[in-house]
Amino acid sequence: MRILILGAGGMIGRKLTEALLAQGSLGGRSVTAIDAFDVVEPAAASDLVETSAGDISDPATISALVAKRPDVIFHLAAIVSGEAEADFEKGYRVNLDGTRDLLEAIRKQGEAYCPRLVFTSSIAVFGAPFEEAISDTFLQAPLTSYGTQKAIGELLLADYTRKGFVDGVGIRLPTIVVRPGKPNKAASGFFSGIIREPLSGLEAVLPVSDDVRHWVASPAAAVGFLIHAATMDTSALGPRRSLTMPGLSVTVGEMVEALREVAGDEAVALIRRAPDETIAKIVAGWPRNFAADRASEAGFAADADFTSIIRAHIADLAEEGQRS
Amino acid sequence: MRILILGAGGMIGRKLTEALLAQGSLGGRSVTAIDAFDVVEPAAASDLVETSAGDISDPATISALVAKRPDVIFHLAAIVSGEAEADFEKGYRVNLDGTRDLLEAIRKQGEAYCPRLVFTSSIAVFGAPFEEAISDTFLQAPLTSYGTQKAIGELLLADYTRKGFVDGVGIRLPTIVVRPGKPNKAASGFFSGIIREPLSGLEAVLPVSDDVRHWVASPAAAVGFLIHAATMDTSALGPRRSLTMPGLSVTVGEMVEALREVAGDEAVALIRRAPDETIAKIVAGWPRNFAADRASEAGFAADADFTSIIRAHIADLAEEGQRS
Repeated sequence: MRILILGAGGMIGRKLTEALLAQGSLGGRSVTAIDAFDVVEPAAASDLVETSAGDISDPATISALVAKRPDVIFHLAAIVSGEAEADFEKGYRVNLDGTRDLLEAIRKQGEAYCPRLVFTSSIAVFGAPFEEAISDTFLQAPLTSYGTQKAIGELLLADYTRKGFVDGVGIRLPTIVVRPGKPNKAASGFFSGIIREPLSGLEAVLPVSDDVRHWVASPAAAVGFLIHAATMDTSALGPRRSLTMPGLSVTVGEMVEALREVAGDEAVALIRRAPDETIAKIVAGWPRNFAADRASEAGFAADADFTSIIRAHIADLAEEGQRS
Repeated sequence: MRILILGAGGMIGRKLTEALLAQGSLGGRSVTAIDAFDVVEPAAASDLVETSAGDISDPATISALVAKRPDVIFHLAAIVSGEAEADFEKGYRVNLDGTRDLLEAIRKQGEAYCPRLVFTSSIAVFGAPFEEAISDTFLQAPLTSYGTQKAIGELLLADYTRKGFVDGVGIRLPTIVVRPGKPNKAASGFFSGIIREPLSGLEAVLPVSDDVRHWVASPAAAVGFLIHAATMDTSALGPRRSLTMPGLSVTVGEMVEALREVAGDEAVALIRRAPDETIAKIVAGWPRNFAADRASEAGFAADADFTSIIRAHIADLAEEGQRS
């Protein structure tokens, strides 16, 4: 089978490509080719991988990729929240037009073609005020342009699926923790930073109070969600094709105590509390807990607990250390 | 003040134009000009009305109308449900691209311009299975392309409002009963037909059982919603800019009894029961009851009861009879 990954150069895209190559098959069918596409050409991890670079908001580029008739398409490409907020036109062009052009390219392949399309949405489709644990029937009222574009993507995915043009599954990813690499400027960056930096012997800044609660999943869980979405029986989903993925609802205090359990007091001592009103205010508008019943019933599995997330990150670091 | 009405040639558009001319002002400001636009040129009801015809999905057409900088824009133009389902491309072009082009034309006028935009959405943004009475926090999961396009319009309206480009209010209209004129092919047509036809001494076909419940409002209530949405204080709405309008949740049996009360047994005897499985199945997927609390709190008022709706229709007929 042929697989297309849009946004293959990002952290999740790279891990997904590696996982597909490692298992060699998807849903019982042998993987014969992976088209890895991103705005910057991804590194080729195997002879099976054909890399290319381009602008997802260029319809001709997308049409050419879809014309190869991949059996499964992973659509991970997006302008992230902060940039979509700062550059209104770019966010709509890439996140809305890019997704719509992809769906149109698939539709225009004609009736004989109906690939599985896995669309990464986000919990940013929800906006405060929330239910205590956001249920599967709670409205999507985003408070950012990024969340708006993802919510529109979900609606289009459902309608194109209902019309038989595509077999779509949208997965709303929790905040991914622990993100590897250097700190970035995302307001949510500290959730990874307070674990990642101390494990490397570096100081981490914690801008919010210990009682702040958030909804998180590990990079490995995210890859698991993507692969399950690509292989699951979609007939049970009905017309509601986007699901909130099961995450862990944990407070900052619980994260810190998990770090203490795994790496001791010395690690925790590297967390420096520096309250930041601006970040606290942004974070207060984010969803913090979900009842992700539909996804659980559909076989999507969350991380076991936050210490498992930390231990998985340590194992990833060790693996990368061996490779380099 | 200058007012732009997109979709001014339809039943609601005509009644809205008449109401604005009759009251001569809107929100305490004198109406100096009304641009009445539709795909077929609307009839001019007064010297204040400038009529024009065109395709709302042509960006240049929309830009020219917006360049006159109307203070209030009523966006009623849409491809209806059945046609949007039959012609996928046309539905998206008019209902999605047309709405987005309108928002873009407003944004491109620059910071000094931020008109009130009243967008007519629909209860078709909701899809079964429903809550018993659909609340203001229930998800939008449409089951038609029309409903999808309206739900996307709501999301865009909220985001453009949040960014300060427009002051938007979306109103989800109930099914309008009693629609004047001849029977049409809409699956919902019989809700008007079983009242309208007997009042004119004609037979009406009732394709569903008496216990079918539906969410309805009169044409006069719809015009009232539009005018209130154009003049209300939007600061209390917050970021959720689309509201389910208050309607009446009535069964077919209750409608028939209201007709008996107003027009007697002879009128009711003209209703011929002819069960139609296809129509019954379509209607079963429609929402039938709402808890439209936010709209009620924001001052939108439903019809008093179904006999009032019938009496208002009779009064409308009498008025039109006097005029012609």
